[in-house]
Amino acid sequence: MTEPDELAWECAKTLYEADVASRALGMELLDVAPGRARVRMTITEQMLNGHRIGHGGYVFTVADSAFAFACNTHDVATVASSCEIVFLAPVQAGDVLEATAREKQRVGRRGVYDVTVTRGVPPQVVAEFRGISSASGKPVLN
Amino acid sequence: MTEPDELAWECAKTLYEADVASRALGMELLDVAPGRARVRMTITEQMLNGHRIGHGGYVFTVADSAFAFACNTHDVATVASSCEIVFLAPVQAGDVLEATAREKQRVGRRGVYDVTVTRGVPPQVVAEFRGISSASGKPVLN
Amino acid sequence: MTEPDELAWECAKTLYEADVASRALGMELLDVAPGRARVRMTITEQMLNGHRIGHGGYVFTVADSAFAFACNTHDVATVASSCEIVFLAPVQAGDVLEATAREKQRVGRRGVYDVTVTRGVPPQVVAEFRGISSASGKPVLN
Amino acid sequence: MTEPDELAWECAKTLYEADVASRALGMELLDVAPGRARVRMTITEQMLNGHRIGHGGYVFTVADSAFAFACNTHDVATVASSCEIVFLAPVQAGDVLEATAREKQRVGRRGVYDVTVTRGVPPQVVAEFRGISSASGKPVLN
Repeated sequence: MTEPDELAWECAKTLYEADVASRALGMELLDVAPGRARVRMTITEQMLNGHRIGHGGYVFTVADSAFAFACNTHDVATVASSCEIVFLAPVQAGDVLEATAREKQRVGRRGVYDVTVTRGVPPQVVAEFRGISSASGKPVLN
Repeated sequence: MTEPDELAWECAKTLYEADVASRALGMELLDVAPGRARVRMTITEQMLNGHRIGHGGYVFTVADSAFAFACNTHDVATVASSCEIVFLAPVQAGDVLEATAREKQRVGRRGVYDVTVTRGVPPQVVAEFRGISSASGKPVLN
Repeated sequence: MTEPDELAWECAKTLYEADVASRALGMELLDVAPGRARVRMTITEQMLNGHRIGHGGYVFTVADSAFAFACNTHDVATVASSCEIVFLAPVQAGDVLEATAREKQRVGRRGVYDVTVTRGVPPQVVAEFRGISSASGKPVLN
Repeated sequence: MTEPDELAWECAKTLYEADVASRALGMELLDVAPGRARVRMTITEQMLNGHRIGHGGYVFTVADSAFAFACNTHDVATVASSCEIVFLAPVQAGDVLEATAREKQRVGRRGVYDVTVTRGVPPQVVAEFRGISSASGKPVLN
């Protein structure tokens, strides 16, 4: 691994270990690179809404976690400023979701990250997410 | 209660009872009217992210539930098409969130709903959410 | 007028006079108050797109101007950070559009403003716009 | 050119010729392919706002035109349903903007298109735009 790749992994793992929410939801950190992260989560029966499909909140949450890991890979503590999600297909209990986050732009303290959420193999796209990040200036690592 | 109010409550309760996700997160349905819903949820330790603040996914989820209850009050099964959320303040473990959804427009099969998420008393705004809905044409009730 | 109203009008008029773009498009500043502005613009033949309806860019532009006037009413120079627009009905040549902007939240340097765009009398809603603003800290007036 | 490329160009040119707004603003259609379009427009003195920078409405408009040309390349008349734009850098009079639209997803009647707007050489990104399209089912060509 190149040095920026090592730093990216170190930042993501540090956050992931402290991220009770993502771990409690069974999220796995599959891949990390500078400005990038890929996260997997399975939709459970506990995640179904009143229409008996996966609650959009959980589709958002896995995308938001991938965004968070990706935008913190530069060792600058960074949070979400605003996010938009487009729902393209419903998800079902048992679906294995993968959220792949990619940095699109980073200008000053702001960044734009795109996250595609898929389910199954071959992957079917279930949502497109775009997050705007705001960097604090503090390091992620000590 | 007027008749549309009764219908609104009946639709929201029907959805709420089937909504395993919202109930598993401890959400309470506080108020419902045509095109409106108010939902309460407490941020728990299990909802904290790697920065030790409430995961944005849970702030989104309570807003999304309020949106879902509000946009289904006309007895037409309706789902989220896309959503945007602006995060204005971090939330902490123990914070009691309230999400208040209001119908802004309904044109053809699409609707625009605004949801304000607050915490505590007096309420501090933590997020502003806007959801675009798509109606299926099928009834919510049988 | 109360003093904040006078300040709001003074800021908006100062910007409007320097705003070659809005004036060249025939925009009129109808009303201003702290955090609020209302702007009128007529759709001309020159604003029609390839489907022979008003180009969405012009519907956005009148909303964006109303947003700009509204978010600068506190005498702090403020620009758009991001904006979202939902198109609800097409507009035609000759339509008189009114864009009404209202401040929803102002937290730190960021603000959230909602703008409703209508056409005709009685007003039909043609678009809902939400803008996120970023304040520079400099005054609008000298 | 392959056949889909020819169809894409034919659709875009048909729309462009009817698009009085884009032509009146001096937009040029630089490149077209299925789901893609690139458009160029120069910021003029008439496009400056009250802060003496390019009005965000014009940055949006060139992105929206690129989006429109891209989403109509499949010979199905398609309009914008909603759009989001993130402003990353101000533009000045004389700046030559290029808006490059790419289809991200197309599912049923909806599509998601990303448009990056740059200025100058080497290109500096000034805005990221995301549009959601809605297809009518009617052909663009006769």
